[in-house]
Amino acid sequence: MSKVDFLVEQGKQVIVVTQIFDAPRDLVWKLYTDSKLMPRWWGPGILKTNIEKMDVRTGGSWRIIQIDPEGNEFAFHGVYHSVKAPERIIRTMEWEGMPDHVLLEAVVLEEFEGKTKVTDTSVFQSVEDRDGMVETGMEGGVIESYDRFVELLKEL
Amino acid sequence: MSKVDFLVEQGKQVIVVTQIFDAPRDLVWKLYTDSKLMPRWWGPGILKTNIEKMDVRTGGSWRIIQIDPEGNEFAFHGVYHSVKAPERIIRTMEWEGMPDHVLLEAVVLEEFEGKTKVTDTSVFQSVEDRDGMVETGMEGGVIESYDRFVELLKEL
Repeated sequence: MSKVDFLVEQGKQVIVVTQIFDAPRDLVWKLYTDSKLMPRWWGPGILKTNIEKMDVRTGGSWRIIQIDPEGNEFAFHGVYHSVKAPERIIRTMEWEGMPDHVLLEAVVLEEFEGKTKVTDTSVFQSVEDRDGMVETGMEGGVIESYDRFVELLKEL
Repeated sequence: MSKVDFLVEQGKQVIVVTQIFDAPRDLVWKLYTDSKLMPRWWGPGILKTNIEKMDVRTGGSWRIIQIDPEGNEFAFHGVYHSVKAPERIIRTMEWEGMPDHVLLEAVVLEEFEGKTKVTDTSVFQSVEDRDGMVETGMEGGVIESYDRFVELLKEL
């Protein structure tokens, strides 16, 4: 059974990703918010991830650049609407390849029996924006990120 | 014919409000972004609107408190994802009476023949959040805001 659930209902403008990690919440929170750790698991491993800015606090901003083996850059940025350690991050995200198309992401961490459930809800400005994101192969990226996250947990 | 269109499709998590003002875009932009002018039109006239913070720039924050005749306070806050004068504001909004429920609002101003069309798209984290906002009587508030906006334009 996979520990990643990827929910994309037809005609909706939301994606809900649910993951369960065999680790306490404080540690999972650290991997989400530490700018040195986050590049080691976020996105496919074939991409190099550079953090230009990651000011994880309510009202802070962030910008991340991913670089593929050919040197192509994919930049993302946004603002943190709210950061409530160790349980909730609500932030905006814009892929700079499609300016002015923005999503609102809520990451919620819940602990039970030493495990941590992460529910990541992204709402898009339109169904088309949502479907466009899904078509980039996002689900594969999410599953690979999950696997990298689990590997990193073992090292810490 | 009304100059306010309020679109709420069943089962969706978005509200689209379209308005046409008989004024140039720069002036409409000013009413949206000037912290002295905005309280004179935003929301129902029966409420007093206090701007605690309104830092209208990419990465800025805002907080507004509305007070009814009995002294009850309704506070809202959020961050500006992007501000591109005079055409686009994308920001988050949270009503503090329902913490952690956040919407993403995009306000787009387009000018044609001396008039300005404003398209205001709010996406919610769930259909329930969207429907809850509609049930507060939001449509009446939007229409009253439109009327107050038009009156204010005449004074300037």
